Amino acid sequence: MASLVQQGDRLAMSKAITLAESKLETHHRYAQQIISLVEDPEIHSRRIAVSGIPGAGKSTFIEALGLQLVQNGHKVAVLAIDPSSRLTGGSILGDKTRMEELSRSQNAYIRPTATGGNLGGITQRTYESMVLCEAAGYDIILIETVGVGQSETMVNDITDFFIFLQIAATGDELQGIKRGIMEMTDLIFLNKADALPSELIHESKMDINRAIQLLPAKMPKWRRPIIIGSAYSGNGIAEVLQKVDEYFQTPEIQQQIADKRQSQRWLRVESYAQEILQHRLQSFLEEASKKQDFLASEDKNPYAYAQQLLKEFLP
Amino acid sequence: MASLVQQGDRLAMSKAITLAESKLETHHRYAQQIISLVEDPEIHSRRIAVSGIPGAGKSTFIEALGLQLVQNGHKVAVLAIDPSSRLTGGSILGDKTRMEELSRSQNAYIRPTATGGNLGGITQRTYESMVLCEAAGYDIILIETVGVGQSETMVNDITDFFIFLQIAATGDELQGIKRGIMEMTDLIFLNKADALPSELIHESKMDINRAIQLLPAKMPKWRRPIIIGSAYSGNGIAEVLQKVDEYFQTPEIQQQIADKRQSQRWLRVESYAQEILQHRLQSFLEEASKKQDFLASEDKNPYAYAQQLLKEFLP
Repeated sequence: MASLVQQGDRLAMSKAITLAESKLETHHRYAQQIISLVEDPEIHSRRIAVSGIPGAGKSTFIEALGLQLVQNGHKVAVLAIDPSSRLTGGSILGDKTRMEELSRSQNAYIRPTATGGNLGGITQRTYESMVLCEAAGYDIILIETVGVGQSETMVNDITDFFIFLQIAATGDELQGIKRGIMEMTDLIFLNKADALPSELIHESKMDINRAIQLLPAKMPKWRRPIIIGSAYSGNGIAEVLQKVDEYFQTPEIQQQIADKRQSQRWLRVESYAQEILQHRLQSFLEEASKKQDFLASEDKNPYAYAQQLLKEFLP
Repeated sequence: MASLVQQGDRLAMSKAITLAESKLETHHRYAQQIISLVEDPEIHSRRIAVSGIPGAGKSTFIEALGLQLVQNGHKVAVLAIDPSSRLTGGSILGDKTRMEELSRSQNAYIRPTATGGNLGGITQRTYESMVLCEAAGYDIILIETVGVGQSETMVNDITDFFIFLQIAATGDELQGIKRGIMEMTDLIFLNKADALPSELIHESKMDINRAIQLLPAKMPKWRRPIIIGSAYSGNGIAEVLQKVDEYFQTPEIQQQIADKRQSQRWLRVESYAQEILQHRLQSFLEEASKKQDFLASEDKNPYAYAQQLLKEFLP
């Protein structure tokens, strides 16, 4: 299967991702074998995060960006992370097919990442999917996230470039942009500009500009650009791609990306260790009558009981 | 300190919450002692979650709701969860004082919950803060979350009632509302209604109504109401409170709340066990030359190395 993935076999790649996402230990181990065979320490890809609050136009933006990249000869993989999918998943309203045109392209691959309620697992699953896509020849990885916190931090850890979509708005409404997210951002795209008064857009740009000037530099020799445009009409997309090129072609930045990817390897060891240990603890807690014993007694303190159980688990 | 908390001493309560949030083991243990002394298995409070995407008007809504509740003789605690606060925290733009009027009230207490980058820790910290507030006589707990997933699921687990704020919008923009969040919701408030065309509001209400009719019931004898209003002008707030009363006074629902709070106790054991174990694993991984050994070798596979380390940690 590993060699099929490396030959760019889409079905094999897709199956390998499914195995990696599986909750079955045997599947997961098998996927890990494949990954260890195909993972390449050399950098052949650009890993780009796209974030923004719901309604900012992420899907439309990724479709426009992806189509342009495919046209320029790239193979594009889109991995979408939806942290709210724990219960039943999916949008309840307006559940139209997303990125329709891009999904029809032979050189694009679109896949949601199942998080299974475990946000900690996102990083590993996304990382594994990314490595498998890269092994199959995808040289641009776009990772879509929702734009309000935790999952962005994790995605920022495993990507090289972070795009944040924003819609022009008055200062009060802009308060939704958190400092934490702005610090991660490498490029801001002011979307839906054709549908809004130019005055408002100009003001928003000034506001954001003022805000980002207070931030520490994320990368050497890089000032976060703010690009005004519209994913729907395609305005501004070329400018985004030009900035992305500029970024990835800066030698100092290339060095930092290489270092970051290297230190990522240790973070993955930590995450796997945590994940495996958590599974074992869960099985242990589900054993026998632990829950019944605890609930039978009103005066047992949860914290004290947890400590007592851990003495058994980890002698 | 426990008895001061029970006397409603605000400073003591605030200190106890700080101890519970502390990363120091000794502080945390001390806080746990206080909590085990003051926790009351009887239900004396209403635990209400308020969610919505950034810009939906959560702060204004909570201020309006809180002021009305205080006026009706309640003591109101507001706990705000911000999952994006890992890096430096706080809003970067428009960082005005939030809930100014409510925060001046003697019978209101407003406190952000520091998540410290550990989303799993949110539930415990919020739970602990909640129990301490209840012990100090706060009978209404309002928990504010951001509205895109994971933290909502966790907050839903520890609250009795879930309010979701939405702004009227066209079907396409409504796609931001995820099915998972709608399933948790007990009441939808269509905010900023006075600033939008009534046609759009009516249509949005119909859309949402159609969507929630497809959902399974969350509570017996409860149909999720959609209330049109404006937190800013106060329109609709009385109606929300009336619905909340109705909900908490329904005998079948009271029974379910009691059951849910009971089963919460075991979930807390699980969470504490996980949290303590994770801390221990982290200390173990930081020991000696584990990281250096791994990074020194290019061909070590992260998954295999994690398994190897766990054999040492958990023989």
